[in-house]
Amino acid sequence: MNELALIDRIRRMTRGQRGLVLGIGDDCAIYRPRANEDLLFTTDQTIEDVHFLSSHAPRAVGERSLARSLSDIAAMGGIPRFCLVTLAVPANYEKWIDAFYRGLIGLAKRTKTLLAGGDLAHSKKIHCDVIVCGSVQRGKALRRDGARPGDRVYVSGALGKSWTRRIVPRLALGQKLVGRATSCIDLSDGLSLDLHRVCLASHVAADLDRIPLTRGATIERALNGGEDYELLFTLPRGKTAPRGTLQIGTIVVGAPGEIRFEGRTLQPLGYDHFR
Amino acid sequence: MNELALIDRIRRMTRGQRGLVLGIGDDCAIYRPRANEDLLFTTDQTIEDVHFLSSHAPRAVGERSLARSLSDIAAMGGIPRFCLVTLAVPANYEKWIDAFYRGLIGLAKRTKTLLAGGDLAHSKKIHCDVIVCGSVQRGKALRRDGARPGDRVYVSGALGKSWTRRIVPRLALGQKLVGRATSCIDLSDGLSLDLHRVCLASHVAADLDRIPLTRGATIERALNGGEDYELLFTLPRGKTAPRGTLQIGTIVVGAPGEIRFEGRTLQPLGYDHFR
Repeated sequence: MNELALIDRIRRMTRGQRGLVLGIGDDCAIYRPRANEDLLFTTDQTIEDVHFLSSHAPRAVGERSLARSLSDIAAMGGIPRFCLVTLAVPANYEKWIDAFYRGLIGLAKRTKTLLAGGDLAHSKKIHCDVIVCGSVQRGKALRRDGARPGDRVYVSGALGKSWTRRIVPRLALGQKLVGRATSCIDLSDGLSLDLHRVCLASHVAADLDRIPLTRGATIERALNGGEDYELLFTLPRGKTAPRGTLQIGTIVVGAPGEIRFEGRTLQPLGYDHFR
Repeated sequence: MNELALIDRIRRMTRGQRGLVLGIGDDCAIYRPRANEDLLFTTDQTIEDVHFLSSHAPRAVGERSLARSLSDIAAMGGIPRFCLVTLAVPANYEKWIDAFYRGLIGLAKRTKTLLAGGDLAHSKKIHCDVIVCGSVQRGKALRRDGARPGDRVYVSGALGKSWTRRIVPRLALGQKLVGRATSCIDLSDGLSLDLHRVCLASHVAADLDRIPLTRGATIERALNGGEDYELLFTLPRGKTAPRGTLQIGTIVVGAPGEIRFEGRTLQPLGYDHFR
């Protein structure tokens, strides 16, 4: 199967999608912004032998590749609009590509994320990059830099999950936090590193009271693992938190980025590709 | 050097850029659309041993990675707004990353393309993906599907270039063609395949009269090579073509996608990753 035929097959999987001026098949996709929206952009790589193994089901790899980027959109309070997918695979991977796209497009349909285009190439190892564009009311995006001393720190669920489970991006919660949370981030690199990032950007410190764990998880994995994909957010004291979320600490005045738990200062040891 | 320090270094290279609500350093970048603009999106992969060799200067690889995507924006008549860059490299490539970004950011500054964000990861082979967002007046993007019988076919320069030369994206020409050209594409996969794509999308055929060659190039390379990055466009008969562009043929009624040259039908043999 040649490139034109492959692209045509992917295009047929997205039949019936509405909302783009122009989708797959030209030099660029065309998106027409709505009145009063800010656009959010994020991109995440998913690489064989780094983020998954060749023994993993391609359908799950496709779904997970999109889910990781959608989680970033959720963290900013956005509504997903469309995605671009680049994929490089070894020769004779047509079946793999097909299953990968079925997984990805399944999640795209459930979250109303349009597939706008991308790029296909060959490489020895599988390499995927998913770019998602989301939208949020002008000036209302949730950011990392708005946490203030006295704010309460929350997470959207128990931590320390294994990286083999399915990622469910917290889109509805993120949208609900718009106009309420003072900061938000998704836990993709571990609580210790991601809360450190929020505190650094906001020039504050944090005291942790408790760390809710999933069954079988260790405190170590909850702090320094990197696969929770829950939202971490801050609310001003007295604001009611959405149902199902858990308070874990308080923002305090202190050395920017410092996190304290059980009397000691935590090292931001979450996942770092370059350490 | 860890990931935070590396990202901080890249961010410093882009100091002083204006035009984004939020750039590098949060879960997403934020772009605020202007009134009456359509947004164009394109993405291109640049892979070690496929698009370049490890012996190539990283600065040139960085510039070329962005240039390829900018060429797609040019082909739609767009003004580049911002880019996202994902990069996966082996361990201890900090110097390479630095030079790569210097090359990329140099071209970004010359073309007023803001660096909005991206993703860094490790992999055995270097893998890069550059997403560019451009803008064009609402409804005015140049597309592949508007060529009509009687239109003249033009290219922006002589063909058959070697892939080692520098790519100069034809942004000014593309913007000049808005409201004038009936179709446009960039020659990234060879004249025979790219003109075939225009004719297929427009449900027309084409007769080629002449193929302007660069010094030392063969007709074979001009037809089926893939590294010209000139614009191929169609103008209604009688419309004056911009200075420096060359007429090479005419759009005709015929089997959709058929290209004739010197009495024979050309096979669309340009570069195809999956053949």
